[in-house]
Amino acid sequence: MIILGVDPGSIRTGYGVIETDGRRHRLIEKGVLAPPRRAELPERLHFVHSHLTELIARTRPDILAVEDLFHAVNTRSAIVLAHVRGVILQTGASAGLPVSAFAPATVKVQVTGFGQAEKSQVALMVTRLLCLAVEAEPGDATDALAVAICHAHLHVSGAA
Amino acid sequence: MIILGVDPGSIRTGYGVIETDGRRHRLIEKGVLAPPRRAELPERLHFVHSHLTELIARTRPDILAVEDLFHAVNTRSAIVLAHVRGVILQTGASAGLPVSAFAPATVKVQVTGFGQAEKSQVALMVTRLLCLAVEAEPGDATDALAVAICHAHLHVSGAA
Repeated sequence: MIILGVDPGSIRTGYGVIETDGRRHRLIEKGVLAPPRRAELPERLHFVHSHLTELIARTRPDILAVEDLFHAVNTRSAIVLAHVRGVILQTGASAGLPVSAFAPATVKVQVTGFGQAEKSQVALMVTRLLCLAVEAEPGDATDALAVAICHAHLHVSGAA
Repeated sequence: MIILGVDPGSIRTGYGVIETDGRRHRLIEKGVLAPPRRAELPERLHFVHSHLTELIARTRPDILAVEDLFHAVNTRSAIVLAHVRGVILQTGASAGLPVSAFAPATVKVQVTGFGQAEKSQVALMVTRLLCLAVEAEPGDATDALAVAICHAHLHVSGAA
């Protein structure tokens, strides 16, 4: 199974694509969608939508996995973040993908065993679980890979 | 000029298309996008995106007008609303439309002359300004028409 994890951000949106049998995972692609900083919100949302559509067409994931947003505090950036997350969910659904969402603590538990793990711990465990030659840096693409791994651990049956 | 006004809702999204020279306005089409109530959020966002894309292709507006959302209080419904608004902005931008946004009080001032107008007053003035034969009902499509009229009054030059 191929899983596309996405970590929406008001400035940069991380993504990670993995192939998994539920226990062993392989990195296919990771990266960051970074719309031009000076672009207005509608243009930035269009950027995310069009690049994510292209990514889905190219990597053909079976499912889109994202974090829940309902823990966010009410700041202007949380509202902007919800705009981006809406576009991500829509882009997945429009491409015919099922979408799964996980609380941030669930993702951390599935990746590190600890619900209050630091970003650096998440990055270390993502590196180990994907057997990466170069250590993943804490941040957008790594968080997206963590969500994909979370989905793999919870919803993909391991090979016997 | 043809203006598409949209009033995003977590359940129903209103829209109204008008033709205007800045002073005289004519209703082209109004309605409500109502995704199946039992659908999950990604499916509902896909519904809004696909129907809005079809509406834009059919009515060929010059601009998309929406209300600002940054006044919203932080509830789960405000976060869902921001998801829907994000999809609307993206759909407009992906169709090549410029997008304008107005504070709710600005819309009310432009339509009724009073920033704290009731929904019924907005509906009455929308009816008058568009010379509708049947009075507009307060609600989604009427609020969308009000945003379109607001854009017309502020940004479209009247005929001499």
